[in-house]
Amino acid sequence: MAPILLNSMGNDHSEYIKQQVHVKNPYLHTLEEDILYHFSLSTKSHNLPEMFGDIKFVCVGGSANRMKAFAQFIHKELNLPGNPAEVQDICEGTDRYCMYKVGPVLSISHGMGVPSISIMLHELIKLLHHAHCRDVILFRLGTSGGVGLAPGTVVVTEKAVDYSFRPQFEQVVLGKVITRSTELDEGVASELLQCSTELQNLPTVIGNTMCTHDFYEGQGRLDGALCSFSHEEKLEYLRKAYEAGVRNIEMESTVFAAMCRVCDLKAAVICVTLLNRFEGDQITSPHDVLVEYQQRPQVLVAHFIKKRLGHIA
Amino acid sequence: MAPILLNSMGNDHSEYIKQQVHVKNPYLHTLEEDILYHFSLSTKSHNLPEMFGDIKFVCVGGSANRMKAFAQFIHKELNLPGNPAEVQDICEGTDRYCMYKVGPVLSISHGMGVPSISIMLHELIKLLHHAHCRDVILFRLGTSGGVGLAPGTVVVTEKAVDYSFRPQFEQVVLGKVITRSTELDEGVASELLQCSTELQNLPTVIGNTMCTHDFYEGQGRLDGALCSFSHEEKLEYLRKAYEAGVRNIEMESTVFAAMCRVCDLKAAVICVTLLNRFEGDQITSPHDVLVEYQQRPQVLVAHFIKKRLGHIA
Repeated sequence: MAPILLNSMGNDHSEYIKQQVHVKNPYLHTLEEDILYHFSLSTKSHNLPEMFGDIKFVCVGGSANRMKAFAQFIHKELNLPGNPAEVQDICEGTDRYCMYKVGPVLSISHGMGVPSISIMLHELIKLLHHAHCRDVILFRLGTSGGVGLAPGTVVVTEKAVDYSFRPQFEQVVLGKVITRSTELDEGVASELLQCSTELQNLPTVIGNTMCTHDFYEGQGRLDGALCSFSHEEKLEYLRKAYEAGVRNIEMESTVFAAMCRVCDLKAAVICVTLLNRFEGDQITSPHDVLVEYQQRPQVLVAHFIKKRLGHIA
Repeated sequence: MAPILLNSMGNDHSEYIKQQVHVKNPYLHTLEEDILYHFSLSTKSHNLPEMFGDIKFVCVGGSANRMKAFAQFIHKELNLPGNPAEVQDICEGTDRYCMYKVGPVLSISHGMGVPSISIMLHELIKLLHHAHCRDVILFRLGTSGGVGLAPGTVVVTEKAVDYSFRPQFEQVVLGKVITRSTELDEGVASELLQCSTELQNLPTVIGNTMCTHDFYEGQGRLDGALCSFSHEEKLEYLRKAYEAGVRNIEMESTVFAAMCRVCDLKAAVICVTLLNRFEGDQITSPHDVLVEYQQRPQVLVAHFIKKRLGHIA
């Protein structure tokens, strides 16, 4: 494997290099064993520092097949030894998530929606902590509905916002609602935008990403099993979202941003838009077009990783 | 396939037999094609009435492997022709959900959490509607944390309640929060409880089920990446839940109950408890014990289905 050289691309290198992965739980060290149930891993049955200690980049996305394809793609991009087709699912003991390790890159699926990704993030952050990882950056590579953008545009998230366009995430803790900030790392977002200018066929913007808790009523779709609003009311809501800086809609960004922030992890959200919601609700592009769109966040993040590792000047 | 005989077990047979699956969306019939995107099915590319018109029982659960196992199990239980090992995933064009049809039974996975199951339910209800299905009962077969129950106990849900123990589901529609009732079908629940008394090794209770939006902080676990409360505060919350009739905690029941109710679908939630949350947070039972626990809701629902089909007097 190539040595890990960190191009810090700025003057925060010394601060950046020191960063360990912290959990915010005073009880965790009192556990004799920590079972990461939904990964089918544990601190007793697995040597987590040996398995994961060199991880620097964690890439997460909803679909298991897509995250396997990303693992194979980054394997080729980093010119690592071995056959990319033979990447092994580390979580094969469970079907909740899948996980692939390729050199310093971890690729994990998280399913759809805030609860599903939140379980994965709790166990991922504990995993990185138990494995003594340092200087880790997290990326969510996803698909989304675009708001006023041509299909295929990649949106790097500036702020993850809720259904009222507020940059916050509401978390219930023991029956009480608390609010967490969803700010993401500005430096990583700008660096990703810069990367996009160095690549062909990667139309990319920075914008706000609205995170909803469903795909139909919450996103103003007229084609669900339930719909109680008019076409005009839908468009009005999307127009308000656009005015608030929202450029795409997905279902995981707020909790991803909030949890990474609480744990001092640098994080970015990169989603391609599959359609322009001003023009419709159904995803009608041909399969091969959608497949190419879904590769765009992968190509962008692979370029970022290669630059950070010194593979590209 | 055996003819479908409906043992209505009561005097509501004539009302029951008439029930079609309705969507609550005035726009749906205006679509030239309805693409059920997350199933990789469509009204144009698939003959949905031919494929699904005879469905009477829909069983849903989080895990893809578990719902495949259930399809194979019910295939054997109903003595259907063909090899149970060869059940085919109808949604093989996507990895979002898996779906198996076994005679009048449909078995579908829904992933974890309210958003994930809600996408599936929108597309399932549209599928049942497009297929002209009648007299359908939906069952969620899940796993859960028990509240004051021995691990392995099956809970048939009386009311699905939120984090404040209210029988309601909050749905955001175009940025506004609306509240839906989460009442389930009393008749089906009592019938399931009756079934449990006819089976060995199936400790079953009727109780309220709390649905949360995460597995750690929202359920009062002390073993997540984030934890800001004490052991005593956790126990106090669980005690309050117990006093409100909560006997188990999972992550999908409120939206399942709410959406079925809006669409006049009879529905039941049957979850086995994997641990007693008064005694801990981690799931530490051996793998084979957990596998047997997870079969209990399947055995119970299979018995119900066989009775309804007249296979058992």
